[in-house]
Amino acid sequence: MIKQLIEKITSTNAPICVGLDPMLSYIPEHVKEKAFEAYGETLEGAAEAIWQFNKEIVDHTWDLIPSVKPQIAMYEQFGIPGLMVYKRTVDYCHEKGLVVIGDAKRGDIGSTSAAYAAGHIGKVQVGTKTFSGFGTDFLTVNPYFGTDGVKPFVDACREEDKGLFILVKTSNPSSGEFQDKLIDGRPLYELVAEKVVQWGSDCMDGSYSNVGAVVGATYPEMSRILREQMPHTYFLVPGYGAQGGTAEDLRYCFNADGLGAVVNSSRGIIAAYKKEAYAKFGPEHFGEASRQAVVDMVEDIRRVL
Amino acid sequence: MIKQLIEKITSTNAPICVGLDPMLSYIPEHVKEKAFEAYGETLEGAAEAIWQFNKEIVDHTWDLIPSVKPQIAMYEQFGIPGLMVYKRTVDYCHEKGLVVIGDAKRGDIGSTSAAYAAGHIGKVQVGTKTFSGFGTDFLTVNPYFGTDGVKPFVDACREEDKGLFILVKTSNPSSGEFQDKLIDGRPLYELVAEKVVQWGSDCMDGSYSNVGAVVGATYPEMSRILREQMPHTYFLVPGYGAQGGTAEDLRYCFNADGLGAVVNSSRGIIAAYKKEAYAKFGPEHFGEASRQAVVDMVEDIRRVL
Repeated sequence: MIKQLIEKITSTNAPICVGLDPMLSYIPEHVKEKAFEAYGETLEGAAEAIWQFNKEIVDHTWDLIPSVKPQIAMYEQFGIPGLMVYKRTVDYCHEKGLVVIGDAKRGDIGSTSAAYAAGHIGKVQVGTKTFSGFGTDFLTVNPYFGTDGVKPFVDACREEDKGLFILVKTSNPSSGEFQDKLIDGRPLYELVAEKVVQWGSDCMDGSYSNVGAVVGATYPEMSRILREQMPHTYFLVPGYGAQGGTAEDLRYCFNADGLGAVVNSSRGIIAAYKKEAYAKFGPEHFGEASRQAVVDMVEDIRRVL
Repeated sequence: MIKQLIEKITSTNAPICVGLDPMLSYIPEHVKEKAFEAYGETLEGAAEAIWQFNKEIVDHTWDLIPSVKPQIAMYEQFGIPGLMVYKRTVDYCHEKGLVVIGDAKRGDIGSTSAAYAAGHIGKVQVGTKTFSGFGTDFLTVNPYFGTDGVKPFVDACREEDKGLFILVKTSNPSSGEFQDKLIDGRPLYELVAEKVVQWGSDCMDGSYSNVGAVVGATYPEMSRILREQMPHTYFLVPGYGAQGGTAEDLRYCFNADGLGAVVNSSRGIIAAYKKEAYAKFGPEHFGEASRQAVVDMVEDIRRVL
C-alpha cells in the first residue's frame, strides 16, 4: 500500500494529504443552513453539512493530491450519523482514486486491536462471508501497549496490503511530557521508533515499509534524528500550518530521494476561505479557496525538497 | 460520577464490571442462526446477534452488578451496524440503571480529544441545540499525548459529571515494553500515574476523583505501588480471569476501606457457558451461566477484601 501512496505522490508531485477534519465552525453558513433546513439542528443535520462540505473540498482538490486523512473524532463526536458520513467520505475519496488514511489512533491489547484492525483496514468474518467495516487504506495506531497491541494491525497490513502510521513523536505542545523522557539516555520516542522499524521490517513494499510513523512537523530537530534512524519508514507529518510547523521544519522529514514523508494540513486547506490570503474567494467558493491553498502548500513544501 | 459508581458498588456489594465484548465466537449458535435468518450473513446480521446476546446477559445480571464496560472495538469491527448496537447497548444498560464505562481508549491532540470527549461523555453543539453521541458515563483514555491531549476529557468530566479511566499500566504481556522503562529510576507508568493524580486533583467527587486509572490485574506488585501512589484514584482493573489475573492478585488494587477498584471480567462472564464449570447450563441458557459466573466472581473477589 505504501507503494501505491508513493506512486500517487510521484504522479501528483505533491507529498501531502488533506486532513478532512470538519469542525462545524469551519463550514460556511450557507452549507449549514441548507443542511439544517433539510434535517433540522440534529446530528443528522450536522452530518449532512459535513458531507456537503467534504464533497465540495474533495471535488475541488482530488486531482492535485495523492491522499486524504479524515480524522474520525470529528465524525465520532456526532455519534452514528457522524460515523456514517466518515464512511461515506472514505468511499467517495476512493471513488476519486485517493489513498485514504484513517486517523483513528486506535490501540489496545491484542484481541481488541485485532477487532480494530478488522474494522478499519482488514475484514471481519460473518458466518461464511467477509466484510470491510470502514475500509481505509492506512490507519494511525497508538503504541502504548507495546508489541502485542500493535501486532494485529501489522498482520492486517500484510494480509490485506494496507498500511499503518504509528505514533512516534506527536505534534502537540505537551507531547514531550512522556515521549521525550530519557530512558538510558535516549528519549522514549526513539525507543518507539526502534520498535516501529522492527514491526515494519517484514512488511516491506518496495523501498519502504507499510508500517510508517507519525512524526510531528513541530519538532524539526527530532525529525532529523528519526529520519536517520528509520530510513525505510514513511512519515506521516502533522503540525504543518495551523499548528505552527513551517516548510523549513519539514526538510528533515524527507529522504535524499525526495520521498519519505506525507505532510498533512487540515485547517489550512479545508478552512482556507477563512484566511485573509483566500478571503477573495468568499464563503460561497470555499472549495476553490481550498484548491488554491493546496497549490500554495505544495509549492511551499517543494521549495525545501 | 465516581460517587455514583461507588454507591452502586456498595449497594450491590460487587466491585466489578461486566465486559460486554461480544466476539461472534462467544455467541451461541442458536442466537446467530436466528439473527442470520432475519438479516442474512451481513454486518446487520452480526449486529443483531450481538444485540440479542448482550440483552440476554444484561437481563440476567443487571441486578447483581454496578456497571458494564462495552469494548467499542468489538462493535466497531462491524462498521456502522456494529456501532449502532454499541449505542443501543449503552442505552439499554442505562435503562437498567447500570453505570456504563465506554472502553474506547481514545486520545489525540487537544482539539481532537475535545471532539472525542464531546462524542463519548460530553455534548456536541449543533446550531442552537446540544446532543450526546454515545453518552457513556466513563471513558477510557490513552495518555501518550500528555496533558494537552488529556485535558479536554478532564474538562468534559467536570462539566458533565462524568468520569475517566486513563491507561497507566495495562494488563497485556508486552505492556512493559514502554510502560516499565525506567526514567530517572522510576518506571514510565509511575510517571503517568503522577500525572493522572494531578489531572484528577480538581475533579474530586467525594473521597475519589472522577479521573481514574487503568491498572492491570496481571501485575500485582505494580498495583501495590500504584495504590499507595494514588490513594484517591479509582482503578479500573482488567486482566482478571481469562487473562490470568487471580483474586489474590487483586488484593492490592483496593484501599483499606474496601473501595478503590472496579474489576472487569469479559470472557469469563459473557462466555461462561463455554467453560466446564458452567457447561450444565448449556448454550440455550447462556444468560443463566453468566449470572452464576457473576455470583462466583463476586464471591471470589470479596474473599480477599
